[in-house]
This record gives sequence, structure tokens and C-alpha cells, in this order.
Amino acid sequence: MADPVRPAAALDLSADVVAITQAICDIPTVSGDEGPLADLIVDALSGAAHLEVIREGDTVVARTNLDRERRVVIAGHLDTVPINGNVPTRFEQVDGRRTLWGRGTVDMKAGVAVQLKLAHELSDPSVDVTWMWYDHEEVAADFNGLGRLLKVRPELFEADFAILGEPTRAEVEGGCNGTLRVELRTRGRRAHSARSWVGENAIHKLAPALERLAAYEAETVTVDGLDYREGLSAVLVQGGVAGNVIPDEAVLTLNYRFAPSRTIDEAVSKVRALFPEYELVVTDASDGARPGLDDPLAQQFVKAVGAEAKPKYGWTDVARFSALGVPAVNFGPGDPLLAHADDERVDCDEIVACERALRSWLTSATS
Amino acid sequence: MADPVRPAAALDLSADVVAITQAICDIPTVSGDEGPLADLIVDALSGAAHLEVIREGDTVVARTNLDRERRVVIAGHLDTVPINGNVPTRFEQVDGRRTLWGRGTVDMKAGVAVQLKLAHELSDPSVDVTWMWYDHEEVAADFNGLGRLLKVRPELFEADFAILGEPTRAEVEGGCNGTLRVELRTRGRRAHSARSWVGENAIHKLAPALERLAAYEAETVTVDGLDYREGLSAVLVQGGVAGNVIPDEAVLTLNYRFAPSRTIDEAVSKVRALFPEYELVVTDASDGARPGLDDPLAQQFVKAVGAEAKPKYGWTDVARFSALGVPAVNFGPGDPLLAHADDERVDCDEIVACERALRSWLTSATS
Repeated sequence: MADPVRPAAALDLSADVVAITQAICDIPTVSGDEGPLADLIVDALSGAAHLEVIREGDTVVARTNLDRERRVVIAGHLDTVPINGNVPTRFEQVDGRRTLWGRGTVDMKAGVAVQLKLAHELSDPSVDVTWMWYDHEEVAADFNGLGRLLKVRPELFEADFAILGEPTRAEVEGGCNGTLRVELRTRGRRAHSARSWVGENAIHKLAPALERLAAYEAETVTVDGLDYREGLSAVLVQGGVAGNVIPDEAVLTLNYRFAPSRTIDEAVSKVRALFPEYELVVTDASDGARPGLDDPLAQQFVKAVGAEAKPKYGWTDVARFSALGVPAVNFGPGDPLLAHADDERVDCDEIVACERALRSWLTSATS
Repeated sequence: MADPVRPAAALDLSADVVAITQAICDIPTVSGDEGPLADLIVDALSGAAHLEVIREGDTVVARTNLDRERRVVIAGHLDTVPINGNVPTRFEQVDGRRTLWGRGTVDMKAGVAVQLKLAHELSDPSVDVTWMWYDHEEVAADFNGLGRLLKVRPELFEADFAILGEPTRAEVEGGCNGTLRVELRTRGRRAHSARSWVGENAIHKLAPALERLAAYEAETVTVDGLDYREGLSAVLVQGGVAGNVIPDEAVLTLNYRFAPSRTIDEAVSKVRALFPEYELVVTDASDGARPGLDDPLAQQFVKAVGAEAKPKYGWTDVARFSALGVPAVNFGPGDPLLAHADDERVDCDEIVACERALRSWLTSATS
């Protein structure tokens, strides 16, 4: 993975936000390699008198202490998924629009660039801000820098509202569905397939389950004013022993994405009710996150950035804040469908629009 | 696999048939290792003036040339599936019956022992007999010694009737079903399972196919007076990419065991008619074998051994003879359900009964 990269001696946060995006994209930060970028961020912000800078591993926190009535956390992760020939970045015209092409441009260094620039420049925001840039978001949840910080410095998470800069095409996405994975297992009795009637076919027993799944109409659940579309899908199926043996076991793995108004237990009950005659084992479950958009500060934010709030479907770190009772939304440049793609690329105007909207709100929000 | 075995300097075919069974079971002949047993058979029969002994690789043919009006092939394979701590053999009482326990006792050295003893002793049978003991039956069909012999010495297969000594519990089993394997493939479109509606779930598309399989009532088809029970079964299923991805492909492998009155093409058409909307690929097909029990010699044999003829379900080498137009049946000691089992074992009385029945027919059959 010896992608050639430009040396970055220092981070110039007075540059325009697109230039900052390119600069930080060209410093590879595949999960685990966030250190050099974290160093540069600490260096670039340490001179700012309005910020208290805290480093915890490769996570950097910078916060104002202006005794505002309300405090907002604004956070973004520094790491990316592995590079695949798409660093250094380059500019391209895509459909007549200036586009920055390369790993991290969408997920989520354009969002981080917006945050870094505003952190540096806004010495007098109308709310106190706790900026957080963290490591290890793109790997197993156990390594997540935000999760680690929450354990060692929980007081840093005290806030009235949180904004994560994950790509949303500069729209506001709130909360997220929960996710549940369940193994549905059928059992039978092996026999030579030449005498199939001696056995009991475990694969055939999947028929009613698949029928129910194929016919299942997922609900749309309104939570705090946002419509969460659920989904119940078979994601894996596996069964059989050999081409001449009646199978004695088959396993169908289901993934239920459930609205954040449901608890995990409720989600499990719903799946059990749908497959009462089957053996089910829950293998993985994560709570969803309520959007919390009934909070006045959240409503003000949505209004200020001029976007319609939408539900977020994938699980993101907003759920951590929701779990703490802090309303949280995603707001960042970039099309989420291009995240992790080899042709990851961001519209430069969208980065600028995000910067402008966030700046406007942070200088006008009334607490 | 260093199973201790008794040395066998020579094969005593004047011993009783149970002793011969034990002697040849205790010479391991996992497919590929038939040579030493083939050597002993050649040695034991070379002295018999009534036999012409031919060796082809590790297949031994011994035939009478008595100018009888009719000729019968009587064949058995020398190899076994791998030994699993069940050689040397031992005698046990099972439900009060003397039982020989160990690898090969059922599949099919008891049958071979009956054949060897009769080949040696019957110098004046009422039909000419071509005895065949062959290698590599328990492995891929390409290696089968009978198939090889048919290619290099087709004239040896000229006969009016054939008996294979595969285990049938001393009953006559005729013909066999054909077998067809088909891959049924569904295709969809990948998507993140958090947005399942963007994708198209290939596993869900298996539902109608599995439903039809589960509801399918296999036919029983009467061929030459025997009832062949068919079977259509899913034997393998595989699909999915990851726990959070809507699967874009799933494959269900079907095995259709079809009556010997159907051709492979007819069997394929039948499966296609059942799954008209699916993508099907035939991966494996073997013709069945008509029992040919309408032949007078076959009827005489069935009557002589005092058994009711039954259909054979698994594919056996009788199909090779059927394909040559030679009526063929299986007749041998041992419960076929114990073939390949780790507790493979044969009832000693059944071996003796088989010897007696075959001897009686071979000395009385009128041609």
C-alpha cells in the first residue's frame, strides 16, 4: 500500500475548506494510522486562545469555554477504510462540477475539514462548542476512539446537542435504526438422497420462513417527526452436506433494521412472533438512536442549515450521543453511497455549502 | 491408517464362506489398494481347470467355457471405503445372531466371498459364468475397474444376464433410478441491508422454489413390474455476502432421482417444468437402469433364490449392464443401510443363505 503522498509539514487552517480537505485526505489515515494527522491538528489549534486542546491517544478534543448557556459537540472521525490507488486525491470535473476524487473525500475528511476550519476561526460562537476528532471509526466498535474517550473522559460528552459530520449530502439526518442479526436454524435427518423419504430435509423446512420474508412488508415508523423505514432481510443462507445427502441442517441469517422507537427486546420479540415455529438465535444487536429533533436547539439547527431533516439508516456514532440523552444528527458533505467506494469523490461546492451553513448557525444560534 | 491386519499368505476357498469373508475383509483394500487381494484371487483360482483366469490391472475375470446356451456375468467389487478402526473384523452376537463386524463385511466382501467360493467349486454350472472382481468402485466413476474393463475387453461383457453382489439383504434388487443434479440460481442486486429496499434479495427469491420442493409429491413409477420410488430434494443451499449486505446471488442444488423408464432428457424437462421461472444448470446426470426382470433367465433366478424382486434405489454398476442390454440385478448379503457405516456388520447366516441360493440356481438353471 505504498501510495505516494505529499508531505504535510503543517496544516494551514486559514486556507479554503476545499484545500484543507485535499490536504488532510493526502495524509493517509487508514484506521490505526491517525497519529500524524492528530499531531498536525494539535499543532494547528494549539495557538488558538479560544480553545482548550485535549489529546487522548489519537483523538483530539478542542473546546471553547465561553460560559454559553448551551454546549454543542461537533465530531468527526479521522480514519478511512483502506486506500485502493485513490490517494493522493485529484480534482476532476464530474457533470460539470468541480469534484475532489479520492479516499476519505466523502467518509469523512471533507466534514472534518469544515469542522477544523470553523474550530480555528470561530473564536466567539453563540454556543460553546466541543470539537472532537477521533480514531478507529471504520473498524470493530471496540476500537472506536469516541467510545474510548467516553470511558476515560465522560465529562467531555456533556452537551445539549451533537452534530456528527458523516456524509449526508449537506442534509440533516437524525437518529438511526437499530440492527438485529438472528440465525434461524432448521434441523432434519440425514439420509442418502436416493432414499429421500428415509430422511427429513432441513433445507425444505426453510420454505415457510423464506415465504414469510418475501411477503413481509416492512413498517415505516415515525419517531420524533422522522419516518424510519425498517427492513427485514435474509442476508446469508447455508445448508447441506453433499450432493447425495438429505441435509440435516440449514441456517438462514436474518438482519432486522428496526426503528429507534423499539428496544432490542421488542425487535427480538417481533422477529420471534414472525417465526414462532423456528429455532432462533440472536447473534448481534445494536440499539437504534432516536433523532431527538424535538429539541429546540436541534430544530433551530435544522432550520438554520436550510435542510429538511431525514432519518439516517446506517448505524453511526450519533447513537452514542442518543444513548447519553444528547440529541444528535449527522450533517456533512458527500454522498453516503460513495463512502468506501473506489470512486469515492465529493462535490467541492457541497463542502463550501456545509461550511457556510454550520458557520451561520454557530454564529447565530440563540441558546 | 495403520490398522493391524492378519497376514494372508494364501486364500483358502475350500473354507466356509463366512471364514472366506473374514479372510478377505482382513486384507485392507481401500480403493487403490486392491492389488494384494487380486494377487491372492488369481493364485487361488489358477489351479481350477474349469476356469479361464484373466487379469486386467487389479480386476480379475474368471470364466467357464462350457458352451452352455446362456452365459451369466456375476460380479463384485474388491475395494472398500476408508477403514475407520474397524479392521480387523471380529465376531459379535447381535440380537442373538452371529455377526461379522468390520469394514467391507457389507459392502461388499461377503458377496465377493460367496462368488469366490462358488467360482472355485462349481466346475459344471448349468450356465456359463463370467466371474468379475473389480477395483475402484467406491471412488469417482472414471476410475471404476468395470468401466475400464468394458473399454479394453468389451467381449467379456457378452452375457444373457448379470448379477452384482452388492448388499441387498439376500433379496433381489433390480435396476436402479437415475440421478440428476441441477443448480437453481437466483440473482438480485446488492445493497446495504440498512437500505434493503434499494437492493433485490436473491435469497428471498428462493421461496417459491423451496415451497414447491416441500410440497412436491414424488412419483412411484412401475418399470418391468417393479415400483421405483422417485425423489426430488434440495441437497445444498448457499447464498449471501455478509451480515449487512442484501444478497445478489443464491444457489440451491437439487437432486432428482428418477425412475429408469425416464431418459436424462425427460428428467431434465420434468425439473424445468417444475421451476420454469428459474435459471437451472445441470451439473451431473446418470441414467437409471431398467430391471429387465421380464427376461426369462432373470425370472428364473428370482424364483430360484426365493426372494421377491425389489427396485434398487442407489446407482450401482448394474446400470452398466442394462446400458449394454444385459438384464442385471443385485443380490448379496448385508443390509445396504450399513454400507460405509462405522458399525458396518453382516449377519453370518445371510452370507450362507446367499451362497446356498446362488449355488442352487447355478446348478439347476435351465437355459
